Amino acid sequence: MGWMADETGLGRNAANFVPLTPLSFLARAGDVFADQTAVVYRGTRRTYAEYRARVSRLASALTARGVQPGDVVATLLPNIPAQAEAHFGIPAAGAVLNTINTRLDTDTIAYIFGHGQAKIALVDTALLPLAEAAIAEMDGPGPEIIEVADREAGFAPSGRYTEYEALLKQGDPDAPWIMPQDEWESLSLNYTSGTTGRPKGVVYHHRGAYLLAMGTAVTWAVGIRPVYLTIVPLFHCNGWCHTWMLPAVGGTLVCCRDVTAKNIYDAIADEGVTHMGGAPIVLNSIINAKDADRRPFDHVVEVYTAGAPPPAATLAAIEPLGFRVTQVYGLTETYGHVTECLWHGRWDGLAQAERASIKARTGVLMPFMEDITVHDETGNPVPRDGKTVGEIAIRGNSVMKGYYKNPEATAEAFKGGFFRSGDIAFQHEDGYIKITDRAKDIIISGGENVSSVEVEGALMHHPAVSLCSVVAKPDDKWGEVPCAFVELKEGRTADEAELIAFARERLAGFKTPKRVVFCELPKTSTGKVQKFELRARAKEL
Amino acid sequence: MGWMADETGLGRNAANFVPLTPLSFLARAGDVFADQTAVVYRGTRRTYAEYRARVSRLASALTARGVQPGDVVATLLPNIPAQAEAHFGIPAAGAVLNTINTRLDTDTIAYIFGHGQAKIALVDTALLPLAEAAIAEMDGPGPEIIEVADREAGFAPSGRYTEYEALLKQGDPDAPWIMPQDEWESLSLNYTSGTTGRPKGVVYHHRGAYLLAMGTAVTWAVGIRPVYLTIVPLFHCNGWCHTWMLPAVGGTLVCCRDVTAKNIYDAIADEGVTHMGGAPIVLNSIINAKDADRRPFDHVVEVYTAGAPPPAATLAAIEPLGFRVTQVYGLTETYGHVTECLWHGRWDGLAQAERASIKARTGVLMPFMEDITVHDETGNPVPRDGKTVGEIAIRGNSVMKGYYKNPEATAEAFKGGFFRSGDIAFQHEDGYIKITDRAKDIIISGGENVSSVEVEGALMHHPAVSLCSVVAKPDDKWGEVPCAFVELKEGRTADEAELIAFARERLAGFKTPKRVVFCELPKTSTGKVQKFELRARAKEL
Repeated sequence: MGWMADETGLGRNAANFVPLTPLSFLARAGDVFADQTAVVYRGTRRTYAEYRARVSRLASALTARGVQPGDVVATLLPNIPAQAEAHFGIPAAGAVLNTINTRLDTDTIAYIFGHGQAKIALVDTALLPLAEAAIAEMDGPGPEIIEVADREAGFAPSGRYTEYEALLKQGDPDAPWIMPQDEWESLSLNYTSGTTGRPKGVVYHHRGAYLLAMGTAVTWAVGIRPVYLTIVPLFHCNGWCHTWMLPAVGGTLVCCRDVTAKNIYDAIADEGVTHMGGAPIVLNSIINAKDADRRPFDHVVEVYTAGAPPPAATLAAIEPLGFRVTQVYGLTETYGHVTECLWHGRWDGLAQAERASIKARTGVLMPFMEDITVHDETGNPVPRDGKTVGEIAIRGNSVMKGYYKNPEATAEAFKGGFFRSGDIAFQHEDGYIKITDRAKDIIISGGENVSSVEVEGALMHHPAVSLCSVVAKPDDKWGEVPCAFVELKEGRTADEAELIAFARERLAGFKTPKRVVFCELPKTSTGKVQKFELRARAKEL
Repeated sequence: MGWMADETGLGRNAANFVPLTPLSFLARAGDVFADQTAVVYRGTRRTYAEYRARVSRLASALTARGVQPGDVVATLLPNIPAQAEAHFGIPAAGAVLNTINTRLDTDTIAYIFGHGQAKIALVDTALLPLAEAAIAEMDGPGPEIIEVADREAGFAPSGRYTEYEALLKQGDPDAPWIMPQDEWESLSLNYTSGTTGRPKGVVYHHRGAYLLAMGTAVTWAVGIRPVYLTIVPLFHCNGWCHTWMLPAVGGTLVCCRDVTAKNIYDAIADEGVTHMGGAPIVLNSIINAKDADRRPFDHVVEVYTAGAPPPAATLAAIEPLGFRVTQVYGLTETYGHVTECLWHGRWDGLAQAERASIKARTGVLMPFMEDITVHDETGNPVPRDGKTVGEIAIRGNSVMKGYYKNPEATAEAFKGGFFRSGDIAFQHEDGYIKITDRAKDIIISGGENVSSVEVEGALMHHPAVSLCSVVAKPDDKWGEVPCAFVELKEGRTADEAELIAFARERLAGFKTPKRVVFCELPKTSTGKVQKFELRARAKEL
């Protein structure tokens, strides 16, 4: 250890140690980017000076309302400016931000309100019925509701609650913030959208959010003054922490309440969006946009995509439209992305299919992370041979503190000194990780492992297929067989036999789906297909 | 404080906490940028895989030679690859890197060897006589010398010491590194080039170097794979930590043993240098280069300049040549730069003179720092009025641990919870700091403060002036008067009366120099003019 012979007087003091927190970014930006546009939403444009002042108002008003450091304050909001302000204003009151997924059911929201013990909840007018129903289901009193009336989107306040803007008026635009005294203090609480059982409350600290934000700015090369469009919901891993990152670089946050192809094209053309994130399903909606919704633009938009590997067909279609797609990977437990499919110049000359196959890799360690390796069952790294699968194990500073009030699940997740992701992958010779499946999504057919992702990739090449998802269907002979659920493109047709034959040309027999069902796929709020739902349907077939 | 109602199980563990250290950047780069060119020096080109392997060899060979964690290992080297490798290999042995200024005198180097207790010193062949003389002066045994024979620059090994390359051969290219267990552990020891008295040993920790490196990559917007030319000596604030930053972004370090205009132009044209740092004197050498030494290039080179504000005449001349200059400011005590003269689009349309006057500002807080303010004598911020001067006070994570074995000086430097810089400045209304002088460089004439920097700026507009420095000359009537020392451009002439008249047109009478002396200015190794030397000469006039 690097302690010198004499370390007298060399300890921490007020001048040389400041706990890391994303709050520092906005404190600085309010000064050095004072006149720069910080937040854009429809007719609203606010500078960094205004943004910081509103955050100060929010923090001081929450304190005046009885919020104490360490208390939880929830939000049930779309990606509107109040949601961004909550990312700074709630922590600036020393409180913990609990962004709740707006598409959850009443019962789950009641559970989250109760488990997290939110004292106050900022709720969009459109979501009041949901919040009210959830609170009615609770045993205790539930959080006090502050209503965020999004007049720009046509929502008039209900009149039943204190309004967000009225709350801000009670606050002090120059109030000092309660900064963390320890960077390990809790910053936010994000409930996983668990597919079975109760969601778990993932706790983030100030340090992790700071480091992920800085490291992302570095490796995504966002430059100074990027323009970021909020497609990823801020209730999902706090929007991959981008809202916290932007003030560090004087960037502009363009809020998007409704994610439609038209809104995306408009934001790019009108606001000069340079960066955005989104699941592959969002990329497909851009590709398949109606002509009337498209807008011309002459710069390249950088896109982080996550949630599933971008299908080759998607990449081939979107890149000529002016988007550069980089796959990233992470989980709620890692504050968002922790790997990136870093591109090398030596791949520039490859054919489109080969380029797409590289872009479909999960990627390599991001610079703020320490170690991401595929482990076998004994906790040793698998060989880098492009085929041996194991579980992705993650170690670094943007791994969660743990699950709130669930030390058993926390200990289980951290067994062996790594966060165990539950995702199954192999490593290429050059170290690039490639996810083959979530552990629970693997199909075991006749003793062979079938990657549902591989089967989906094959079907996505069919010109009529817009989206598909493959799950295990119980089978008397093989144990399980692949079963595909497919959405077709508007105006296109295909039948089951045709798609099975198409897949068989590209896949081994045991990997070829035995059934194809045409239907709209059930999706989570973040665009992920809900495979647990499809597995249930496949069982019934 | 943001501690939740129940923090059970939410503490640090091996998966979610890793001490911050720049070593992590190279550990990752050896993998994800394995084939990327890491280091270039004349005929030598090494990839990141090779760079990391050589660092592992160095670390393990030092350990085998008896270096223990916490020991000091010194270097007396120009900016050659061994100096860069030392920045990683010495800390990777758990040891503390002590880069020594190669232009110091024997006596001072003997003092540093003794004070820092370096166990081993890596010494360039050309500097062996200096190291040997210093060791001979010491009471104790002094460090063991490892000779770095720079054959590419024509230096044959002396044969008297173990050679650096032989040492590396003894090491293990796959040896594990000794990573810090606490990010506060000491990383490096940098002696200030104190102008009076013994130099003080400034101690850096792993955390500060990591954060400055990441924050610089963000705010300088270096992107991925920048090409950085090492003009700033690595023994000066560890080259502003750029060597530690580069692996985080897969950048290429172009080593430059001798800083000449020809070498700079060649590196830009041949290696595609995108970023460099240097004192204004380096900018002048680029501007005044002989035609034969110039090379064409068609990209813009980003330049951080520090040590003194870039004179308007320098900026006006260099920017059309393809360089974009940003002034940064810092001290050895702050790991290098902590402010930047951040440019705003609203200034783009200004006339050259106004643009230059803005670029001459010291600037604003960099994103990894917490607070940089101008304080009055009572420790309160001065008004932002563009005239009231005070001392620059600095707080943040890249402030030194303190001075080695000097707790009194450490406590004095940190009085009031800020690092007191000793630099005198005012703040503009928009918060931009402008240094008027080092506290000791202020000239007090008839009770009025005269900024030596302002007088220098006026003289630099004269077409014959290549460089100038203004100091106080004792005066019976006024107490002190400004006295200018001037270097003329080759082939140009000017006399004392002409320059005094020229200055008088631009300055108040009490600010106008009363004497002008033509001579070569004494400079430190980093290109700073040694004003203490000129003050002594002025006293004799």
